[in-house]
Amino acid sequence: MADEALFQFLHSELIQYIYKSGANGETENGKNITKLEAMGFRVGQGLIERFTKETPRFKDELDVMKFICKDLWTCLFKKQIDNLRTNHQGIYVLQDNSFRLLSQLSAGKQYLEHAPKYLAFTCGLVRGGLSDLGLKSVVTAEVAGMPACKFQVMILKA
Amino acid sequence: MADEALFQFLHSELIQYIYKSGANGETENGKNITKLEAMGFRVGQGLIERFTKETPRFKDELDVMKFICKDLWTCLFKKQIDNLRTNHQGIYVLQDNSFRLLSQLSAGKQYLEHAPKYLAFTCGLVRGGLSDLGLKSVVTAEVAGMPACKFQVMILKA
Repeated sequence: MADEALFQFLHSELIQYIYKSGANGETENGKNITKLEAMGFRVGQGLIERFTKETPRFKDELDVMKFICKDLWTCLFKKQIDNLRTNHQGIYVLQDNSFRLLSQLSAGKQYLEHAPKYLAFTCGLVRGGLSDLGLKSVVTAEVAGMPACKFQVMILKA
Repeated sequence: MADEALFQFLHSELIQYIYKSGANGETENGKNITKLEAMGFRVGQGLIERFTKETPRFKDELDVMKFICKDLWTCLFKKQIDNLRTNHQGIYVLQDNSFRLLSQLSAGKQYLEHAPKYLAFTCGLVRGGLSDLGLKSVVTAEVAGMPACKFQVMILKA
């Protein structure tokens, strides 16, 4: 319980620090999101490296995605992704019905505009993890109703 | 294993970001240490709040310190403090013979000067945790030989 809280608290300190140290405004917001994404990317790379040391090789792309949805998610959020869908052409949608990093925010719609900054780090983390496993990707996220959240992963073919 | 790595990676991203975003020099280094300490403080407060929800009340100061050495340390670093000493007058020395956040650094002496930035967050964290339990304190740390480390806690009387 407290393990999970440690990540949540650190994550929100990170956001606060990045937003406090930069200026405000649209452009700055974009830059901050990019910074968070980049930090997530590096953490994702490191984690997967450490995590897959004793894991057998993955069969295919889908197998890698299942690993992200199960093992990585459990390590980060103590729960699995609730639903994984794919078009079998390199697009995957990972749905988390109760995304931990959003659960601190109120469920109302008034905070919906703040959601992107709570998602950027995790998008980067997924992208970093996949990159470490040899898959280049673009990862985006959207919130329909808090605290549910969908991550869309588009695998880029070499 | 990976849970622990998550904290380590995030912690080192935090340090890198703070040091990259600020200028260099003695004064700046001091400011960065203060920032890290303050972030640790807030994370410590949050963690202890979450952590002690179902914990019975503490008997005394020593009981609180034991909780920090055992429960909090295990949550953060998957190990306990190796040695706790006190003068029974409000000073406690917590010795960790293999402090996780230093174990990424080489054991040589050439990195000893960088040690303070790897300790500041944890000093703040202990201070924040104690503060949440009603104890005001000053927490400092020193490294004798990597990766062993001593945290000194001085409880301030009200």
